[in-house]
Amino acid sequence: MAAIRPQFLRTAQLSRVAPCQARPRCLRQQVRRNHSNREPFSESKRENETIPPPRPTNSKPNDHLPSKTTVPYAKTRLAIGIPFIGLLIYSMSDTPTIAERDTLTKRESGVTSSSPMRLRMEALIKDHQKKIVRELEKLDGTKFKVDAWDRPAGGGGITCVLQDGNVFEKAGVNTSVVYGTLPRPAIQRMRANHKALDLDVESLEFFAAGLSLVLHPKNPMAPTVHLNYRYFETVDPRKGGETNAWWYGGGCDLTPSYLFDEDAIHFHKTIKEACDKHDKAYYPRFKEWCDRYFSNKHRGETRGVGGIFFDDLDEGEKDQEQLFAFIDDGLSAFLPSYMPIIQRRKDMPFTEKEKIWQQIRRGRYVEFNLVHDRGTAFGLNTPGARIESILMSLPLTARWEYMHEPEQGSREERLVSVLKNPREWV
Amino acid sequence: MAAIRPQFLRTAQLSRVAPCQARPRCLRQQVRRNHSNREPFSESKRENETIPPPRPTNSKPNDHLPSKTTVPYAKTRLAIGIPFIGLLIYSMSDTPTIAERDTLTKRESGVTSSSPMRLRMEALIKDHQKKIVRELEKLDGTKFKVDAWDRPAGGGGITCVLQDGNVFEKAGVNTSVVYGTLPRPAIQRMRANHKALDLDVESLEFFAAGLSLVLHPKNPMAPTVHLNYRYFETVDPRKGGETNAWWYGGGCDLTPSYLFDEDAIHFHKTIKEACDKHDKAYYPRFKEWCDRYFSNKHRGETRGVGGIFFDDLDEGEKDQEQLFAFIDDGLSAFLPSYMPIIQRRKDMPFTEKEKIWQQIRRGRYVEFNLVHDRGTAFGLNTPGARIESILMSLPLTARWEYMHEPEQGSREERLVSVLKNPREWV
Repeated sequence: MAAIRPQFLRTAQLSRVAPCQARPRCLRQQVRRNHSNREPFSESKRENETIPPPRPTNSKPNDHLPSKTTVPYAKTRLAIGIPFIGLLIYSMSDTPTIAERDTLTKRESGVTSSSPMRLRMEALIKDHQKKIVRELEKLDGTKFKVDAWDRPAGGGGITCVLQDGNVFEKAGVNTSVVYGTLPRPAIQRMRANHKALDLDVESLEFFAAGLSLVLHPKNPMAPTVHLNYRYFETVDPRKGGETNAWWYGGGCDLTPSYLFDEDAIHFHKTIKEACDKHDKAYYPRFKEWCDRYFSNKHRGETRGVGGIFFDDLDEGEKDQEQLFAFIDDGLSAFLPSYMPIIQRRKDMPFTEKEKIWQQIRRGRYVEFNLVHDRGTAFGLNTPGARIESILMSLPLTARWEYMHEPEQGSREERLVSVLKNPREWV
Repeated sequence: MAAIRPQFLRTAQLSRVAPCQARPRCLRQQVRRNHSNREPFSESKRENETIPPPRPTNSKPNDHLPSKTTVPYAKTRLAIGIPFIGLLIYSMSDTPTIAERDTLTKRESGVTSSSPMRLRMEALIKDHQKKIVRELEKLDGTKFKVDAWDRPAGGGGITCVLQDGNVFEKAGVNTSVVYGTLPRPAIQRMRANHKALDLDVESLEFFAAGLSLVLHPKNPMAPTVHLNYRYFETVDPRKGGETNAWWYGGGCDLTPSYLFDEDAIHFHKTIKEACDKHDKAYYPRFKEWCDRYFSNKHRGETRGVGGIFFDDLDEGEKDQEQLFAFIDDGLSAFLPSYMPIIQRRKDMPFTEKEKIWQQIRRGRYVEFNLVHDRGTAFGLNTPGARIESILMSLPLTARWEYMHEPEQGSREERLVSVLKNPREWV
């Protein structure tokens, strides 16, 4: 299969860049020095933001993260915002990196529906992050702490965490954008699923962008929820920044400590409706994939009552526009799938014993994330990764009791039996 | 290098076994059926115990685990004890497994200094387990829960756990004995460190025995301690049960939440003395190995203030008797290295804030054990492994605060700076 050359990938905007010695490392160091004391999302920073809504029919240009955000530890703040004048001086090379191309494109023409998918995906996830954070703040009555950070090797992200709130023990909503280089062995491994990947190179530039979200409520009757939608792309540096291969992955799943069938049904039904709009085969296929992936294999039980999970959706599945619209709808389904559940569970009465059971289930959550989750493992093994953003998914507190077994016929035992034999909910 | 044929490996005792169809699986199932309702360490079980002290000069034959032990959940009790008459009927094969040979040897002649190392190591670790459990019970004023269990694929163990005691939040002292089969790829991987391993076979029988211990005290001023000593052996089934390769591994390390230099110095000094008796090069070499191994690489800090760690000590290091004596002395050094520390820290006053810091450090402990520890990964990936015994090392409770950073100049910050730059303590 030939390499993909999406019609929307425009390189004309880069033609003004004149050749010169690129010093991206020096540039980045300068960027960090200049901005390390700025408030993320401060007014001076917003002036530099050039990310309009990615899908004009579906988003509001005025959506933004809460204007009054706080960052807990001044010395750990990482600045966002690119001093474009510096970029112009330093990146004038024959072969600008895709990070440099993208920064220039954003500055010069903003992000529209004809921009490269990289920029549209970045704008999409940031847009959804703002909406989700705003709704969760309304629900909890507490503001998220917002850390905007950049990656030394290219890219950056916005980590929003609400800790020890009124409703949530810990809630994290994170966007990240990564520009990097894939070495040959990694290309070879990925090629199993992506025939478009060019094997005839020593390395490929890659781009990855995703929105990750984990909410751990305080009330043991309220379930934990996880969501992740991501886009991955490789670029062959020899071919002027043309996309080499691309794919989407993602999903959303629910992890109760106490199982209310109506919650699981509502959650699955809402997600199924979003899937059905695009392909009737998606929900059953991705539901089964979810049960298989989010499994604590060493205990023979799933992490929770599932949802959907998928990976490697590329041109062999559907065209890129269709998949992008599916990702957007998946993200849009999040609030309707979860908010009614948390609303009806957050103030339910509970006992000390039920709180302990929740803590034991939190321990199982930690086991999955640290032992089995490929995303976490990838993050922890990525040099220069932001550990606090990766491990934001862990609960505030967890518990491991030796040989704990729920009583026969109890609600706790019923949950475990469902986790050992995943059900169809819709 | 030729395969090892230790002089103490006697096969004469097996000559009485007449050929017949071996049905080890049926046998084991029958063993479990017959014994599933027995109390571990009950009198009827002790009658079958045939493990005398491994080194008569150094152990007391009357050492035994506390006679009044309780097991929390009746249905999870796993029985120990082999019905030898059944074994004789079923194992009469031309090629008895090493598990069958060892069971017969124990029954017929007990364990002496001329027994196979497998049996001597098993007896050694059980002997030390009893002594350690007895001393910890005296200290805590609470009895351990004792689970004796067998492995469907061969071997078994004794898991002793004290949970929510007076001194310890969770304390686990576990012995395990595993008989199994190494497939060819595993042999090839291990051969890098053990030239005696025969590559000219499709599979090898293996034996592994070890004592693992993790104590998490309640008081945040008292450090967590971990110990593990183990022996590994492969046997070529074509050569009548002769040992093919063998090696020892182990160590002991300390993980404080609040650093008292005198504790770290005492701990390292006691261990160094045990090492120096055998080789003056051991302590510096194994201390550095410990700092390197017990490292949360993703955070750039060691798990604790170290101790010693080593692996793959085989005939290229010293002869087997010398290494066995070193392991025995390492085990014997445990109580003197830790008891004075826990004695002086267990009743110290502490604040709520200090308890929270301990819980955050417990979270780091969980991260190491689930993300980096090779032993845990091996256990979780071993089919039929006893998950509760493997994860007994996890603390009762742990905590993950987003972006927690200790205050400048605080005791918490001092600990972290030592974990980032391991020190020499003696």
